[in-house]
Amino acid sequence: MERYRRIEGLQMNEEHLWCLKESGYEAGLHKHYEGLFTQGNGYMHVRGSFEEGCSDAPQDEEYLRFPDNVTLEKPRHPKSKQGTFIPGIVAQHPLLKEEIVNLPYMLGLELWSAGGRLDMDLSRISGYSRWLDLRDGCLHRSLIWETPGGMLLKCNFERYISMADKHLCIQRVQVEVLAGEGRLEVRATLRGDVRTNGMNHFDSVVPSAEVGCSLSLETLTEGGNQIFMHSALEASEAVIWHEENTGVTAALRGEFALQAGDRLTVSKLTAVTTDRDMEQGGTGSRALAQLSRARDIGWDGLYERHTASWKSKWQHADIIIQGDDLAQLNVRASIYHLLRANREEDDRVAICAKGYAGEAYFGRYFWDTEINLLPFYLHTNPQAARNLLLFRYNTLDGARRNAQNYGYRGARYAWESSLSGEEQCANWQYADHEIHITADIVYALYHYVRATGDEEFLERYGIDILVETARYWCGRVDWNREGECELLGVMGPDEYLPLTRNNAFTNRMVKFSLEQTVTCLDSLMSSKQDSYAAAVERLNIRPEERELFRHTAEKLRLPYDSGTDVVPQSDDFASYADVDFAGIWTDRSRPFGHFISQERNYRSKALKQADVLELMLLFPQEFPREQLKAAYDYYEPITTHDSSLSVAVHGIVATWLNQPEAAANFLQRVMAIDLSTEKKGAAEGIHIANCGGLWQLIVYGLAGLKSAMWSGSIELEPRLPEGWTELSFQLAWQGERYRITVHPDAYEVHKLEGRGYVAGTTL
Amino acid sequence: MERYRRIEGLQMNEEHLWCLKESGYEAGLHKHYEGLFTQGNGYMHVRGSFEEGCSDAPQDEEYLRFPDNVTLEKPRHPKSKQGTFIPGIVAQHPLLKEEIVNLPYMLGLELWSAGGRLDMDLSRISGYSRWLDLRDGCLHRSLIWETPGGMLLKCNFERYISMADKHLCIQRVQVEVLAGEGRLEVRATLRGDVRTNGMNHFDSVVPSAEVGCSLSLETLTEGGNQIFMHSALEASEAVIWHEENTGVTAALRGEFALQAGDRLTVSKLTAVTTDRDMEQGGTGSRALAQLSRARDIGWDGLYERHTASWKSKWQHADIIIQGDDLAQLNVRASIYHLLRANREEDDRVAICAKGYAGEAYFGRYFWDTEINLLPFYLHTNPQAARNLLLFRYNTLDGARRNAQNYGYRGARYAWESSLSGEEQCANWQYADHEIHITADIVYALYHYVRATGDEEFLERYGIDILVETARYWCGRVDWNREGECELLGVMGPDEYLPLTRNNAFTNRMVKFSLEQTVTCLDSLMSSKQDSYAAAVERLNIRPEERELFRHTAEKLRLPYDSGTDVVPQSDDFASYADVDFAGIWTDRSRPFGHFISQERNYRSKALKQADVLELMLLFPQEFPREQLKAAYDYYEPITTHDSSLSVAVHGIVATWLNQPEAAANFLQRVMAIDLSTEKKGAAEGIHIANCGGLWQLIVYGLAGLKSAMWSGSIELEPRLPEGWTELSFQLAWQGERYRITVHPDAYEVHKLEGRGYVAGTTL
Repeated sequence: MERYRRIEGLQMNEEHLWCLKESGYEAGLHKHYEGLFTQGNGYMHVRGSFEEGCSDAPQDEEYLRFPDNVTLEKPRHPKSKQGTFIPGIVAQHPLLKEEIVNLPYMLGLELWSAGGRLDMDLSRISGYSRWLDLRDGCLHRSLIWETPGGMLLKCNFERYISMADKHLCIQRVQVEVLAGEGRLEVRATLRGDVRTNGMNHFDSVVPSAEVGCSLSLETLTEGGNQIFMHSALEASEAVIWHEENTGVTAALRGEFALQAGDRLTVSKLTAVTTDRDMEQGGTGSRALAQLSRARDIGWDGLYERHTASWKSKWQHADIIIQGDDLAQLNVRASIYHLLRANREEDDRVAICAKGYAGEAYFGRYFWDTEINLLPFYLHTNPQAARNLLLFRYNTLDGARRNAQNYGYRGARYAWESSLSGEEQCANWQYADHEIHITADIVYALYHYVRATGDEEFLERYGIDILVETARYWCGRVDWNREGECELLGVMGPDEYLPLTRNNAFTNRMVKFSLEQTVTCLDSLMSSKQDSYAAAVERLNIRPEERELFRHTAEKLRLPYDSGTDVVPQSDDFASYADVDFAGIWTDRSRPFGHFISQERNYRSKALKQADVLELMLLFPQEFPREQLKAAYDYYEPITTHDSSLSVAVHGIVATWLNQPEAAANFLQRVMAIDLSTEKKGAAEGIHIANCGGLWQLIVYGLAGLKSAMWSGSIELEPRLPEGWTELSFQLAWQGERYRITVHPDAYEVHKLEGRGYVAGTTL
Repeated sequence: MERYRRIEGLQMNEEHLWCLKESGYEAGLHKHYEGLFTQGNGYMHVRGSFEEGCSDAPQDEEYLRFPDNVTLEKPRHPKSKQGTFIPGIVAQHPLLKEEIVNLPYMLGLELWSAGGRLDMDLSRISGYSRWLDLRDGCLHRSLIWETPGGMLLKCNFERYISMADKHLCIQRVQVEVLAGEGRLEVRATLRGDVRTNGMNHFDSVVPSAEVGCSLSLETLTEGGNQIFMHSALEASEAVIWHEENTGVTAALRGEFALQAGDRLTVSKLTAVTTDRDMEQGGTGSRALAQLSRARDIGWDGLYERHTASWKSKWQHADIIIQGDDLAQLNVRASIYHLLRANREEDDRVAICAKGYAGEAYFGRYFWDTEINLLPFYLHTNPQAARNLLLFRYNTLDGARRNAQNYGYRGARYAWESSLSGEEQCANWQYADHEIHITADIVYALYHYVRATGDEEFLERYGIDILVETARYWCGRVDWNREGECELLGVMGPDEYLPLTRNNAFTNRMVKFSLEQTVTCLDSLMSSKQDSYAAAVERLNIRPEERELFRHTAEKLRLPYDSGTDVVPQSDDFASYADVDFAGIWTDRSRPFGHFISQERNYRSKALKQADVLELMLLFPQEFPREQLKAAYDYYEPITTHDSSLSVAVHGIVATWLNQPEAAANFLQRVMAIDLSTEKKGAAEGIHIANCGGLWQLIVYGLAGLKSAMWSGSIELEPRLPEGWTELSFQLAWQGERYRITVHPDAYEVHKLEGRGYVAGTTL
């Protein structure tokens, strides 16, 4: 696996630009690194836990999480929380509804000697280091273990989830005897003693082990999913593996006699399949077949396929920064997780809020996907962007059920979407009132079409989303006595005001959504009569509906116009209470929300996150610089950034307003959200929306790209931070690829040679 | 037990005015009658279940109730839910917080013959009738059972919870053999297989039975309470009782050989004590002692003591209506429950929302106590009223903790109070925002003082409540830029608008509360210097606080003034959406809330209950008739009365406005709330606040009594419903008792002879 260093383009001297390092072990940071070092390939994801686990951190602790964890639940901070996630494998939590299942742990590889187990907290360890290589997603761990029997063992652990062969997890441990002699036992496991948010979601876990060298674990979830894990072991020395299954764990143990200078390598190759896999064939035998094929390809071959796949991804997605090595590494860490979390081959799933790197937010889909993540995929991997929109198309029936549950026609997308599109949010103030998600999806639909030129998508899929959501909006508005319609009882992006009147962001997005529905209907009617007729029949569009959509769009009230000085967040924003931030928020290193009761927060002018500024980011052409500046000057001081979606937006706006100091500060804060060890930001998973926000801050902010929503061609207005000598990235744009290179005083847009990509191809 | 008919004043020919009857058995109504026929004496309460239980209605079903039962919980409608409640015995529900424990069932008396058990659904039954005699709270059941062996047995069950000897439950079954012969077995039980809202709250249940004739069950709750139940059996025929304990049930079985014409009587006398009882001595032996003493007194003696106690209660509380027998009976049913639910001897408990007649609302204390219940007790049993206020004084520390939890100084009473005063409401919109409860308690405090003249209560207890709640209000208000202070983010009495601005009811009540605090401080300072100094020290009152209270009271905004045409419910009320009631509420026999999502409801002008009208009821002198009429005309049509607190208020206002038809209609609706078999109103317990509301509708509405809050003497403005020829009741007023007699065209206030009562006596 050391071979990667020789692969073209992966240079030894670039390690500091590509490798996330943990130089010393600290138990209190382990959970953070478990999240940050999550590996995956879209199909499956595994948190960066130690192969041997941790002492005092049982993974099968059962407890009940409550919907409102702030007031009711005692927070749990175990030293370690392992995580194995396959998007699409979910179960029902009795209180929290649908959640992604934390699957059996497949990485188990324990070292034993003289009755003692290698354990980072209990063993005598020196020379520890660990690093995730972002180039190929390999996780490396190196340490020297002084065994209870006095041997000095240098241990190197390596592992990756193959990006080329999506069902494979490949691991290796190399042991070199620096001093002493004795016996070393290696125990390989597949462990079913795993709980998700305290719940056991497994109906049965059946371990088996062949005395030869293979292990398997067959799991049946309570939701009826089957998960098959098969592992094959290989050792550089002859060994007899002994079966040691216990309860829900499959285990094999092998013993080696070692003396100084010996080197031992043990490899573990695991294939994972489920009943949801789209490939043909029985799932159990399919895992065995994957394993057998992998062994035919061999370890080197597997790695070559894997690294070639990663290289191709980086080629399109990398952002190269000259003059700021730390930013370079941090930006790549974000892109790594964006590349890993995406599953472009399967439009039955999208990208969950924690990037499949933890149990928080239950593996559900939020507006983050459309507003924070989509731009990255639009301009690096349009096929992946298309897939995210297809997920929303595929869950339109769930959205219809949501609308019906609330008493409306049409379709209402869920604030927290299940696999089938149905609302899962257990707290009513978000589920019921944060309705902008339904318009956000239409915005994203148009963003996709305009960035890729894939007009056909509208005709085949988009029109259903447009018409059904337009019907919902026509039911959701209230008509006032002035003949305007309004959206009452709304939580905007700012989640610290739950029930406002005519939220500027929401109303503008809804107006856009309704307008585009009318435009799309008109356009189909005039130029694609067949498609139009089919849509009319399929969606049962009544003749008067177009006019209803148009009229509702026209009369929908906006709480501002072009002359408004400070665009109000909502019609009633002025009536909320001013906040004495200095008196309340006495420690700015912790969220504002920790210093104020929800009751008080909900009546105060303290924003959780960008709201009007988010509106201005999405409709930049509608707000002159003076309005943008007035909004930034007013809202920024009263915005707490308690949401991770906030800081990147502020960074972009600060950049647009030529406030380099503020912009640089926001850039640092964006990068710190997952990476800061002080805040242990990644402990519960990756803030994947913020990863997308960082990409947007660089591309829309620093490079100053005009959004494809509002510009038909690539236009830039760069403002590089101090010290950055060059910023360079590829950009997919309307079916072609370009390389953008920005210098402090000039920029170039270079159209790339060779075949472009074709958006809209089906798999 | 038939002896009561001979007691003076309890006439045979008055049965239709005193007995609630169930003429035929209907399984679907059994749960309703279990609630309606609840018996009790303040100390303990037992629902009106059958002695032998019901087939297909296990009492130990375990399930998880969710805080939001509308959307998450599947409603449960078992045929029967038994209930045994002792105010003060509570436990923690994992999701719903503190709840009163449904205790072991003490009424078990089963009849068996030829292997078959008497069961209302499975046996051959004829001649069934059941009635609760409101005069003495005795429940009677009569039926003829054709046993599997062909005997015809006339069975009469009778039982009561002694009003005189609070720990005693007294039961009897009489069996007369109409035809046939054979063996009859009687099985007496104390059963611990009881769950509260699906939860097992018992750590241990230890049954025992002596082969003689006594049973016992010792229960330890998970909260550490001990409950002792001891039963003694007595039969009119010689019998050997056989022990048949099973698991958590104590049981004795006796067998009798019967032939036609035989009469058998079996009596069961049960004593219940707990570790919370205030009497001295070990609780287990205390129950035995109670039992022993009871047996010494004898069955007749016990009944005489009991019925004398009831008679004395009725003497002060009865309302006599001539000309409307149905209203007469229904009003007495309400008064019965008000008399039963009250525990004037113990100021550590108050009266819970379901009157200790069901598990709903978890045995907690709401504003109902102060606003809906208190007037009845003020004017029939001032000592009981005093006790309710002492409960709030005793829980002031809990209220202080509530304030602290929200980040305020002072004391904030809980929307749903635990025994210790701490907030138990699991839904944040009520817990956080329905803050008027804290002012309602101060209003009640003054209502007590003014109705009884017990000024000393203010000085000894009230001042602490006043100062601490005033401190809370000073923290809870926000000051606007016009120099007014406001109450934002408020749910008023109308629970269909959760977050409003300056709710008229709330702000007026808070202004009153702050004003009275200042007045009370001033009055103490000038006339009771010692008390004042003690309060200053005890409450650490700073010199500037009085002025802060005064200034806040003065500047607290009211969203109306004397010139306002329609007093708005809140400053933002006009901004909510109009409701198409005809289109939405298609079946008026069901609550409006069943036809609209909470989301839509929360942005609509649809009131759950009286809000502005409640304000006008509490401050009648401040609103001229035109304002009252404008409010009634505007709000009544948009009020859904989905809360049982609403209808009585509307009835009073309709009466005041001389709208006899509307008033009569509201009177019918008030009486139907618990009594209607169509709605099964009492299934989950008694709407005890509505019972208080009915009393207010008669006394404040029909008799037109001016509230003691605003009138120093008894003033009446009667408006009797059509057909009522006389309305008569006693009234306690400022230390004296009066008899009020109202005729259609005249009324009399007659001061009663003899010793008045003295409020403020301590127990």
